[in-house]
Amino acid sequence: QGILERLDAGEIVIGDGGFVFALEKRGYVKAGPWTPEATVEHPEAVRQLHREFLRAGSNVLQTFTFYASEDKLENRGNYVAEKISCQKVNEAACDIAREVANEGDALVAGGVSQTPSYLSCKDKMEVKAAFRKQLDVFMKKNVDFLIAEYFEHVEEAVWAVQVLKESRKPVAATMCIGPEGDMHGVPPGQRAVQLVKAGASVVGVNCHFDPDTSLETVKLMKEGLHAAKLKAHLMSQPLAFHTPDCGKQGFIDLPEFPFGLEPRIVTRWDIQKYARKAYDLEIRYIGGCCGFEPYHVRAIAEELAPERGFLPEASEKHGSWGDGLSMHTKPWVRARARKEYWENLKPASGRPYCPSMSKPDGWGVTKGARELMQQKEATSEQQLKELFQKQKF
Amino acid sequence: QGILERLDAGEIVIGDGGFVFALEKRGYVKAGPWTPEATVEHPEAVRQLHREFLRAGSNVLQTFTFYASEDKLENRGNYVAEKISCQKVNEAACDIAREVANEGDALVAGGVSQTPSYLSCKDKMEVKAAFRKQLDVFMKKNVDFLIAEYFEHVEEAVWAVQVLKESRKPVAATMCIGPEGDMHGVPPGQRAVQLVKAGASVVGVNCHFDPDTSLETVKLMKEGLHAAKLKAHLMSQPLAFHTPDCGKQGFIDLPEFPFGLEPRIVTRWDIQKYARKAYDLEIRYIGGCCGFEPYHVRAIAEELAPERGFLPEASEKHGSWGDGLSMHTKPWVRARARKEYWENLKPASGRPYCPSMSKPDGWGVTKGARELMQQKEATSEQQLKELFQKQKF
Amino acid sequence: QGILERLDAGEIVIGDGGFVFALEKRGYVKAGPWTPEATVEHPEAVRQLHREFLRAGSNVLQTFTFYASEDKLENRGNYVAEKISCQKVNEAACDIAREVANEGDALVAGGVSQTPSYLSCKDKMEVKAAFRKQLDVFMKKNVDFLIAEYFEHVEEAVWAVQVLKESRKPVAATMCIGPEGDMHGVPPGQRAVQLVKAGASVVGVNCHFDPDTSLETVKLMKEGLHAAKLKAHLMSQPLAFHTPDCGKQGFIDLPEFPFGLEPRIVTRWDIQKYARKAYDLEIRYIGGCCGFEPYHVRAIAEELAPERGFLPEASEKHGSWGDGLSMHTKPWVRARARKEYWENLKPASGRPYCPSMSKPDGWGVTKGARELMQQKEATSEQQLKELFQKQKF
Amino acid sequence: QGILERLDAGEIVIGDGGFVFALEKRGYVKAGPWTPEATVEHPEAVRQLHREFLRAGSNVLQTFTFYASEDKLENRGNYVAEKISCQKVNEAACDIAREVANEGDALVAGGVSQTPSYLSCKDKMEVKAAFRKQLDVFMKKNVDFLIAEYFEHVEEAVWAVQVLKESRKPVAATMCIGPEGDMHGVPPGQRAVQLVKAGASVVGVNCHFDPDTSLETVKLMKEGLHAAKLKAHLMSQPLAFHTPDCGKQGFIDLPEFPFGLEPRIVTRWDIQKYARKAYDLEIRYIGGCCGFEPYHVRAIAEELAPERGFLPEASEKHGSWGDGLSMHTKPWVRARARKEYWENLKPASGRPYCPSMSKPDGWGVTKGARELMQQKEATSEQQLKELFQKQKF
Repeated sequence: QGILERLDAGEIVIGDGGFVFALEKRGYVKAGPWTPEATVEHPEAVRQLHREFLRAGSNVLQTFTFYASEDKLENRGNYVAEKISCQKVNEAACDIAREVANEGDALVAGGVSQTPSYLSCKDKMEVKAAFRKQLDVFMKKNVDFLIAEYFEHVEEAVWAVQVLKESRKPVAATMCIGPEGDMHGVPPGQRAVQLVKAGASVVGVNCHFDPDTSLETVKLMKEGLHAAKLKAHLMSQPLAFHTPDCGKQGFIDLPEFPFGLEPRIVTRWDIQKYARKAYDLEIRYIGGCCGFEPYHVRAIAEELAPERGFLPEASEKHGSWGDGLSMHTKPWVRARARKEYWENLKPASGRPYCPSMSKPDGWGVTKGARELMQQKEATSEQQLKELFQKQKF
Repeated sequence: QGILERLDAGEIVIGDGGFVFALEKRGYVKAGPWTPEATVEHPEAVRQLHREFLRAGSNVLQTFTFYASEDKLENRGNYVAEKISCQKVNEAACDIAREVANEGDALVAGGVSQTPSYLSCKDKMEVKAAFRKQLDVFMKKNVDFLIAEYFEHVEEAVWAVQVLKESRKPVAATMCIGPEGDMHGVPPGQRAVQLVKAGASVVGVNCHFDPDTSLETVKLMKEGLHAAKLKAHLMSQPLAFHTPDCGKQGFIDLPEFPFGLEPRIVTRWDIQKYARKAYDLEIRYIGGCCGFEPYHVRAIAEELAPERGFLPEASEKHGSWGDGLSMHTKPWVRARARKEYWENLKPASGRPYCPSMSKPDGWGVTKGARELMQQKEATSEQQLKELFQKQKF
Repeated sequence: QGILERLDAGEIVIGDGGFVFALEKRGYVKAGPWTPEATVEHPEAVRQLHREFLRAGSNVLQTFTFYASEDKLENRGNYVAEKISCQKVNEAACDIAREVANEGDALVAGGVSQTPSYLSCKDKMEVKAAFRKQLDVFMKKNVDFLIAEYFEHVEEAVWAVQVLKESRKPVAATMCIGPEGDMHGVPPGQRAVQLVKAGASVVGVNCHFDPDTSLETVKLMKEGLHAAKLKAHLMSQPLAFHTPDCGKQGFIDLPEFPFGLEPRIVTRWDIQKYARKAYDLEIRYIGGCCGFEPYHVRAIAEELAPERGFLPEASEKHGSWGDGLSMHTKPWVRARARKEYWENLKPASGRPYCPSMSKPDGWGVTKGARELMQQKEATSEQQLKELFQKQKF
Repeated sequence: QGILERLDAGEIVIGDGGFVFALEKRGYVKAGPWTPEATVEHPEAVRQLHREFLRAGSNVLQTFTFYASEDKLENRGNYVAEKISCQKVNEAACDIAREVANEGDALVAGGVSQTPSYLSCKDKMEVKAAFRKQLDVFMKKNVDFLIAEYFEHVEEAVWAVQVLKESRKPVAATMCIGPEGDMHGVPPGQRAVQLVKAGASVVGVNCHFDPDTSLETVKLMKEGLHAAKLKAHLMSQPLAFHTPDCGKQGFIDLPEFPFGLEPRIVTRWDIQKYARKAYDLEIRYIGGCCGFEPYHVRAIAEELAPERGFLPEASEKHGSWGDGLSMHTKPWVRARARKEYWENLKPASGRPYCPSMSKPDGWGVTKGARELMQQKEATSEQQLKELFQKQKF
């Protein structure tokens, strides 16, 4: 059954977690460029991560094609001694995802994300061509559906959806924005409307913000769709980091990004709360992004096991709410084998010299850009792009 | 070249990281029992983790035989539908480690750890028999050397070393104790002396405490050996969690153990400091335990690259001190591509409702035991074991 | 020169600090009732506190008549063995304030605050009579102007202003509300308009929120007045506690109120920032409320000394920005005798087991009341009062 | 009854709080020099603070003669326009203390503290002469007993005790040291022995460390006296600031000293725990130093009311364990009127950008001095003083 059949039938669809962060820690992705040449260089590592998400309960395996557009690979991937073509990266990603999906009953989703071409103000034709190049591979490899994800600018997201819709496959679209809206200050509700009008059947957010903040944004999208009398399925794939102190551009501006985020990592119990809250908001495509490890995905599946009627395979190695601890040698550790304990624990950081929140960077640097963006009536998108360009983004 | 040849020549030997914690998060080990049946059930997952550590710079791959003594597997592993024999688990562990070691030039170390037999006061013969059963497999599979690790009681560690020395292979021995000494209050220096006298060529600590605390303990061991005019190589394999608030028994007593430790995870930069400090203390076998992921091991290798003269394979995907960020789109993120930035960052936890430290559990529960232990003159080890037994450990 | 002459001429008028909190710590006011019978019982203590504020730079001494309405004194003050009449408390307060004001050139302001009569739904006549009783004393003692302060309900504040205006003296009016508005959800801008229309020449906020939050509220009031084309002077007298985690009702709902607020106390440097920010917002009557000690008031006077052209008397015993430390014996303490040091210091709490923020109480308890209040169209003020009454406030 | 009669009879004697910090905040003492010329300039302010401590339960009023030796006043007090003689400051201090003591039944204690003469290596004769000058005033004014307090160097403390004993009045002696001992590394136990041998009848610590740390030090003193078979009464007057992060020299080295200590201020409940713990340690002279306000002293008196059989006068305005809150208007605040609530509260700091602990300053600056001090065998006190002198202390 396809993604829309499942969602239309009211099923919960569990997404997967964050590949670039997980594989960076495992040694296969470079922070900074964040490109996915590992699909060719180390397929076994990519395959294993897919398998872990599948076992943890993922119903969708996204091809590891994040930042795999040709312009990005050329632009950022040039530290690789021997150049690997965009086509090979995308093809390998499809093959690996399909191979693992067949070990269970997961769907394979081909994914595209924002391009340097757009940020450097290439025209619509050129940006669309970049997406089309990836789409050609996805069609050849016959993925089950398509995802346009990690867009900061709705204009580019709309172009991506339009290209992906040429395939006639279902399209899901997520933006990496917060409740305050995209970089142009337009609120999430309107953005959702634009994505649905462009052809997306599933809309939502991914990355850049923590679970709570992301759910706020999806709620605003839901309200926007409702006001516009449009229907679409809702989706959320947030960070697995606490980011209450984020500004408008999310966790990238936090001083800890990307190598000091450890104290912000969410626990499995945080994720159970997130899964329940997402479900209560009528979000039915529930997954994660950067920081989400297999055990976080398993936590979604365990929280929603009553609704779904089954546990994922990896729960064989996990007691619900810590009940595996009932086999511990120490009595006071055995006493932790219960829901109330983990639900109410306020975990200490062990870092007495560190604060709990940070001030995001970047506000000074781009003050001009920000002010201009806030004068949204006066600023055409073109002006804004020029401004960004001048700042050598 | 064997472990002793390398250490005698003054080489730095990099250990690997923590299997049970990493594989728990990946879905293959159950917290509570912590047993390694994954070597039989899911060898590909164990193999992949070994490979990641190898790529990150590990010179030693420890067989995944933690808690793989027969008594432990029977005692704790009975949730597995189909019983897997102790021998199969240990054999598979050796095979997988060797297979991956051959992908590089790493050594394979067969490992034993503390047994339920000892804790339930079985006699010396019986406890030694358990170790011998594992040793038989290690000999058959011809591992390169042996490690006795994760012992809270020096008596049991000594028995383990004695058994392992029967093999005539080099033996390393580590205890999971802090600067205050083992559960009987005897200081680390004396413990190190006992281990060396029993036959260990390398001694140190693993697990239970954070890098800083562990180094303090090794320092005390070094001083003890010096005072006793004994020579041995030093080794440290600490947690990758900050635990300044630990009591005598380490992180197990912290209320966050084992499912709420995320905010305590150390960064790669913390590990670079640890590696340098360990090196300066003349520790030459430097690795990690629970919480250590491949990127933490890579941080050891990167910090000590000047001394060693080379970087590990996985550094292809990592800029030293964050320099991959120089390719980031945002100028203020590019500004983070430098050592001073990451060295001085005090990472925020994003958790304004959480404290920085916790009070360890267990002090009330075992008050009797603790008091008895503190009266060390008056208490025979036998009395102590009886006491523990009454508490149904 | 009177208060309006000073403000009209563009002068900065510095208010005083918080009497009930300061005198509670000195042993003369009881937390809970918070009534000011100390004016009769221990005039020397009240006099000394006035004098300290005067020396610190206060241009206004408020009579210590907070909660000195007859209904409050009867209701809450009955723990005093010998009853002290409302009239005596108010008269003594006026005499003490005037006596100290004459030691400098400060003005005396007679103050009224919210009454139990209003909260228990007495009618307008009765509530106004309570204010009038205090006003009679203020007229007899010829105070310089009048302040209606610490009102949660604008209706009662308006009644208070109306009564005070009968005197023909200038009236200032402050409410203890935050940016979200009063208990009925009406925003600060509208509230300011109502107070000015009722006759207040100076409007603003006092108590319940920290300096930053209070300034946000005054900013909204300023915008409301501007939109309504009304003119009034602006005033702020916030807490000297950090309360970023407050809900709508301010610091009273924080679990630390009132006996665990110490870690939230603001430094003199926080107050210098507050004073500058208030000045930049065109607030010209700048003082404090609960938690403000004499040294906090001095910090206002020191920050604005360049604008005012002089320092307060108490600055004889205070080096600007810590420069008295240049006389310290230790070189590293002498190094702290400079503005940059104190301006940038992030002071540690020394409390590693405590969080940085709290969840306010009371949300559950009064859920019914809150929901009703939020349906502001549907709820008459009368209904709301009935609701409050049922909850036995 | 004199101090020794009371202590010998097993009575609890409650000391007073910290004058220099309290009067700095009230505007009468300058941080840096910390000299007490306020006794002449503003006797009413000093008198009022004495009175507040008396009402709060103090059985001893110390003359406000801290840093009132002639050399200190000349050295540091020269910012005062008109010079005030040492004799006048000390005489006024005695008069004010006696006047207030007569309002209750408190004793007056004349106090001396460390001198610049000692730190600049004047000889024994000269240093003793400075103490004798103050003692002459104390004798003329007939104080009840004498206190030598705030000494970092035991040699100087011993000289002070010797001078004070010339009076034949009882002498109490406290040092501002922590558990690690004085600046020369000699442990507290030995120091206590020296003070008792010099003539002190009461020994203990004051200032520099928080209540918990100070009690540890007094415990070591007690053990030292016991081992030496000497008898003396014990005394503690700690800071009212949390300082778990202090180094050897106490709170002065913390970056927050003296103008950013607010988040460290202890609550009244912290003090109740301190008072109980002090009592259980058999300390019978229990008071406070810097940061102790009248309500902290009241907390000692309230905690020990069961043992003493009465409450202090100021408890008329304080409900035991917050029970005055039972009169509050809000039900959830009324719910705080109980011991369990305040005893278990972990108060938030409201400061999400601040850490919980600081690294003390000064370690780098005086590394030479510290190293020398640690080589205690090799260093005569003379050498050390020369070293300090070179550093222009």
